[in-house]
Amino acid sequence: MMTGSRHYLDHNATSPLRPEARSAMLAAFDLGGNASSIHQEGRKARGMMDRARDSVASLCGASSRDVIFTSGGTEANVLALTPGLQLDRDRHPFTHLLVSDVEHVCVLEGHRFPSNAVLSVGVDGHGHVRKDQLEALLQRVESEGGRALVAIQAANNETGIVQPIAELAMLVHRFGGLLHCDAVQVAGKLPLDQVTAGADMLALSAHKIGGPQGVGALVLRAGGISIADKLLRGGGQEKGARAGTENVAGIVGFGAAADACMIGLSEHALTLKDLRNRAQSLLLKVAPDTTIFGAEIDRLPNTLAFAIPGLSAETALMGFDLGGVAISSGSACSSGKVKKSHVLEAMGVSNDIAVCALRVSFGWTNTDVDLEGFSAVLDKVVRQRKTSARAA
Amino acid sequence: MMTGSRHYLDHNATSPLRPEARSAMLAAFDLGGNASSIHQEGRKARGMMDRARDSVASLCGASSRDVIFTSGGTEANVLALTPGLQLDRDRHPFTHLLVSDVEHVCVLEGHRFPSNAVLSVGVDGHGHVRKDQLEALLQRVESEGGRALVAIQAANNETGIVQPIAELAMLVHRFGGLLHCDAVQVAGKLPLDQVTAGADMLALSAHKIGGPQGVGALVLRAGGISIADKLLRGGGQEKGARAGTENVAGIVGFGAAADACMIGLSEHALTLKDLRNRAQSLLLKVAPDTTIFGAEIDRLPNTLAFAIPGLSAETALMGFDLGGVAISSGSACSSGKVKKSHVLEAMGVSNDIAVCALRVSFGWTNTDVDLEGFSAVLDKVVRQRKTSARAA
Repeated sequence: MMTGSRHYLDHNATSPLRPEARSAMLAAFDLGGNASSIHQEGRKARGMMDRARDSVASLCGASSRDVIFTSGGTEANVLALTPGLQLDRDRHPFTHLLVSDVEHVCVLEGHRFPSNAVLSVGVDGHGHVRKDQLEALLQRVESEGGRALVAIQAANNETGIVQPIAELAMLVHRFGGLLHCDAVQVAGKLPLDQVTAGADMLALSAHKIGGPQGVGALVLRAGGISIADKLLRGGGQEKGARAGTENVAGIVGFGAAADACMIGLSEHALTLKDLRNRAQSLLLKVAPDTTIFGAEIDRLPNTLAFAIPGLSAETALMGFDLGGVAISSGSACSSGKVKKSHVLEAMGVSNDIAVCALRVSFGWTNTDVDLEGFSAVLDKVVRQRKTSARAA
Repeated sequence: MMTGSRHYLDHNATSPLRPEARSAMLAAFDLGGNASSIHQEGRKARGMMDRARDSVASLCGASSRDVIFTSGGTEANVLALTPGLQLDRDRHPFTHLLVSDVEHVCVLEGHRFPSNAVLSVGVDGHGHVRKDQLEALLQRVESEGGRALVAIQAANNETGIVQPIAELAMLVHRFGGLLHCDAVQVAGKLPLDQVTAGADMLALSAHKIGGPQGVGALVLRAGGISIADKLLRGGGQEKGARAGTENVAGIVGFGAAADACMIGLSEHALTLKDLRNRAQSLLLKVAPDTTIFGAEIDRLPNTLAFAIPGLSAETALMGFDLGGVAISSGSACSSGKVKKSHVLEAMGVSNDIAVCALRVSFGWTNTDVDLEGFSAVLDKVVRQRKTSARAA
C-alpha cells in the first residue's frame, strides 16, 4: 500500500486501509443515499450500516443496539466522559472522573467533568495503574457521597502496555462506579472482549484497525447506561445519541475492517509478535544498552517501544524516515513535533531516556521484508550515534 | 450512480459522491498516513489535506487558516454555538443566542447556550426572518448589557428559501453581535461568498456538495474570532480547535468536491433551475391546485418544495419510490418517519397542507431523463389522489 520501497511501521498511529474496507466503502459510495431517508436509496444505506453495526458489536462482544457510531476515538471518549451518564437501575449521579496518568490526551482532558472533579491515578514503573491509589480515590469519592466514572485504557498507544481491565473493573464496581475503557489500541491486535472484560463502555477507532479515518464508536456494554447530555444534538440519528448525517461509507468500512481483523486474529497476533520480537532482538544486538519499555510484562504483540541512550528521538526518526522506514516517537496527535511523553514521565522514566523514546508498531501490511528494511536502517542510524558519541 | 432506472431527486438530503471526490479519496486511501505524523507518509497526508483546506476556503471566500474541519455540518454548528466564542478586539461575552424558527434542528438545539438564553426569531409567510423581531431582540439583549450570537441559515433545507444574509448581518453587527450562518444547503448551488456576504461564521457539509458523508467545516470569516471551549479536546489537530485524527481521505474528498462545484457554478445553477422550473410546470399542469413553497421569492435553484392537497406526503413518497423516484418529505434527519415540518409551521402553513409537503431537489447527477422519470410517476401518483377523492 505504501509508495516504492517504504516500510510503514507506524500502525499504532494509523493502519493503512484494508482492501476489504476499501471495497466495502466503494460499494457504499456507489449506492449513495442518506441513511435517514425513507426511499430505497436511504433504506439500502441503512441496511449496509446495520450490518456494519453488527460487525463492530461482534468485535467487542456487545449487542448491535449498544454501538453508537462517532467520528472517531476522540469523539467516543468525549461522549463518554460526562457527569450526564445515567444508569437505569440507579440514578445516583456521577460526581467524579478518575483517569490514569497514562491515558490518551483526549481522556486526560476530562471533558464535561469540571476540572476539579477529575482525579488522576498514578501508574507504577511498568505503566500499570496503581490499584492502591485507585482504591483510595474510590473510597474518597464514596466517603464524600459521590460516584466515580473511571477511565482506563486497555493498552497504551505509546508503549503497548496492557492494563488488567477485568481486575480493575471489579474494583471499580465494588464502589458502584463505572469503567470506561479506551480500547482503541487493542482492537485488531488482541481479542477485544477478553482483554476488556468487565469494562462498561469502550471507545474504538476504525483507522487503528485498517478501517477509514474519521469513524469510531462508543460501545455501551453495561445494561441500562445512557448519556443524558448528548454531545451532538439535532437530527435523531444513532437513536438520538449522536446527531449528524451518518457517515455510511466510513461506517461500512469500519464494519469490513472489524470483520477482517476478527478472522484469524490469534494467528495474526502471533505473526505480529514474531515480527516485533525479532525487531527487538535486532535492536538489542545492535545496541545492547537499549531500554525496551514493557519488555517483561503484558503488552500489545505489535508494539515495540524503546530508547537507545544518546540517540535522540528526533535524530533517529529523521534517519529512519530518510532510510524509508516510518516509525514514531510515540503519539502522533501533536502538531508534527516530538514532544516529551507524559506516559513515560508517569512511569518514572528519566528525562534523558524519555527524549530518546521511539515506537515501532507492526500491522497487517507488514512482512519480513519490512523487518529487513528496519534492520538495514537501524544499523546506519545506530552507527550515527557511535560517530556522534566519538565526536562529542 | 444510482441503481438501474432509479431517478435520485433528493440532493438536499445527500448528493452522491462526485467522481472527482471519489478519485481524490482513493489516492488518499492509497497513501495512508496520519496527518500528524512527522514521517514522509504523514507529511504527504498533511500536504493533501492542506490543498483541500485551500479549496474549501476558496469555496467560501475565506482564508485557509480560518477553516476548521469537522465531522459534518452538525458538528460545525455545534462547535460554533457557544457562549465561549471570543473576539480578539472586544472581550464582551456572548450572553444570548438568537435563532430563526426555520433553522435546522441541530441549530434550534442552541447547544452550549443555556436554554433560557436561546431566543427564537419568527419568519413571515415567505419563510423570511422577521427583521422587526430580530431587531427587537437585539435591542433587548443590548439593554440587558448582553451580546448576541445570531444563527440564521443561508437557505432552508426543506423549502430552499434563501435569507438576505448581508442585510441581516448589517443589523446584527449594528448591535455588536456576530452572525453564524448554516450555509450547508447553499454551497455548490449558488455563489457561497455572495449569498453569505457579511456572515462571520459558516457551517458547511461535504456530502451536500458531492463530497463524502462524515466531513464538514466551520469557517471563521470575521477577523480574530476564536472558540474558548473547544468541543473535542485532546490532540492538537486543527491548530487545537478540533482534536481527533484527521479524516484525511474525507477532507481530500471534500476539497475535490469543492473544486468541482466551483467550476461552472453559474451554468450548473442555470441547469438545475431549468430542471426545477420544468418540474414545477409539470406539477401545476397535473395538479393545478398544488401549493409551491417559495415560488415568488428567492430560493435555491435546485429545490422544489410543494404540497398537493389531499395527497399525503407518506402516500406520495411511497408512490414515487415504488415508481423509481427518490424524493423526500423535507428533512431526512429523523428516524425514517414522516414528521410534521417545523419550518412550514413557522411559515404559518396550515396543517392539512403541511402534511402533504414534499421536496424534490436536483443535483449534479440529474438530466432530462430524471425529469421524464419524475413526470411519468407524478401522473400515476396524482391519479391515485383523484381516485381516492372520488371514492371518498
